Amino acid sequence: MSSAKLKLVQKLKLKKYRDELKLFAAEGLRLCEMAADFQIEFGFYTAEFLKNERAEKLVNKIKTCATLYEIPTATFEKISDTKTPQGIMLILRQKTFSLEEVLQKNLIVALDAVHDAGNLGTILRTAEAFNCGVIILEDSADIFNSKVVRASMGAIFYLPIIKMTRGEFLSEMKNANVEILAAALDSTAEIYYNHAFKEKSAVVFGSEAQGVSLEILNAAQKIYIPMTGCAESLNVATAAAIIISEIKRQA
Amino acid sequence: MSSAKLKLVQKLKLKKYRDELKLFAAEGLRLCEMAADFQIEFGFYTAEFLKNERAEKLVNKIKTCATLYEIPTATFEKISDTKTPQGIMLILRQKTFSLEEVLQKNLIVALDAVHDAGNLGTILRTAEAFNCGVIILEDSADIFNSKVVRASMGAIFYLPIIKMTRGEFLSEMKNANVEILAAALDSTAEIYYNHAFKEKSAVVFGSEAQGVSLEILNAAQKIYIPMTGCAESLNVATAAAIIISEIKRQA
Repeated sequence: MSSAKLKLVQKLKLKKYRDELKLFAAEGLRLCEMAADFQIEFGFYTAEFLKNERAEKLVNKIKTCATLYEIPTATFEKISDTKTPQGIMLILRQKTFSLEEVLQKNLIVALDAVHDAGNLGTILRTAEAFNCGVIILEDSADIFNSKVVRASMGAIFYLPIIKMTRGEFLSEMKNANVEILAAALDSTAEIYYNHAFKEKSAVVFGSEAQGVSLEILNAAQKIYIPMTGCAESLNVATAAAIIISEIKRQA
Repeated sequence: MSSAKLKLVQKLKLKKYRDELKLFAAEGLRLCEMAADFQIEFGFYTAEFLKNERAEKLVNKIKTCATLYEIPTATFEKISDTKTPQGIMLILRQKTFSLEEVLQKNLIVALDAVHDAGNLGTILRTAEAFNCGVIILEDSADIFNSKVVRASMGAIFYLPIIKMTRGEFLSEMKNANVEILAAALDSTAEIYYNHAFKEKSAVVFGSEAQGVSLEILNAAQKIYIPMTGCAESLNVATAAAIIISEIKRQA
């Protein structure tokens, strides 16, 4: 029966249980299609979901390797994290990556206390599109939060991501001879496109309210994006996109 | 009494009434500070909101030019569009701009059926930061939707924005000798950073699902952002940031 599984899914809405069980949830047709080659523990769907060919094909494919429970729409709505659920949810095992896998990438994106789940997910999507590795520093949102997973548009399934402390990050990047850059709201910093990026860089983005922490700023080459309007700052996912794309343009 | 005003605010949640009355709402300390030099019709605050100096200063400033009603927190929660309201809301008159004001800008960002309010607001914020004009084409989200206003972080107060049809857009840009570019998910298009942007450009972004409409694509220089990961596309606000910043970098 699926009732124990349903309880488990409710638990997975809390970071504590996601961390403990090393599981997370992904919802919706497109995301679940992308997750289909991932390690699926189990999943749920509704009879309504099956009412199109693409959905039916997906459910049949997953059933060959994992248990899928058909549940009533009302029950699905209770476990769903979206307003208008599509009727499919998979519970997936969290992948773990090594520092070496992240360091294989020429550009590493590090996130320093990025709290907003939508922004974090959007940055993961951008990082994946530009073939980056990702390092999550302290106090950022959980990458397995359902909003992050959704905004990442599946990037979470492919991206090499690891977590570490600021101290570990600084020493590991130094060991690996990776130049550390930090996006700063500081017009004494170097304009981002004037910087000649090295072959291996790690670029750090902070929270919109606080920016990158002093601990990192003091050890980094500060770069900034010149703005000519009245705005005080850019959205952090916007700033990340501008800087990542420029580093890749120069490469 | 404020009850008629409260009813009006509820109405303004609908585009129909915002269009008819030419009013819109802005919420929260930071947004309302930015709106304080705008044409304020009236507003609401809670006694709780006043419990810090910055908030009190703002309320006193606004009271010199517009009526502010103190309402109970429970009432405020009913009119608020946010989960945890800060306790201040202003009703503002929509500014209208002329085509000439938009054309004064060297870069015009045109949005073709961008439905998502968060993305639209984020693009407006980026456009303002880079001193662009904005043209909203058919089928886009309403720029005075509260989610757009919030994501724009006040850009909506400063940006020259006009609405027009696709047909009008194409003919007006031609008349004004503005090069039309369209972000396309099409690797036969020119890579965005290889294009030598003219002094005056209009760059069009479409919805994430559909892209830019054929009507525009057929009349535009298509540009695309090369991606090296598994992602099929970027978030539209991300794509806009990458292309806008490159055009400004070249300028």
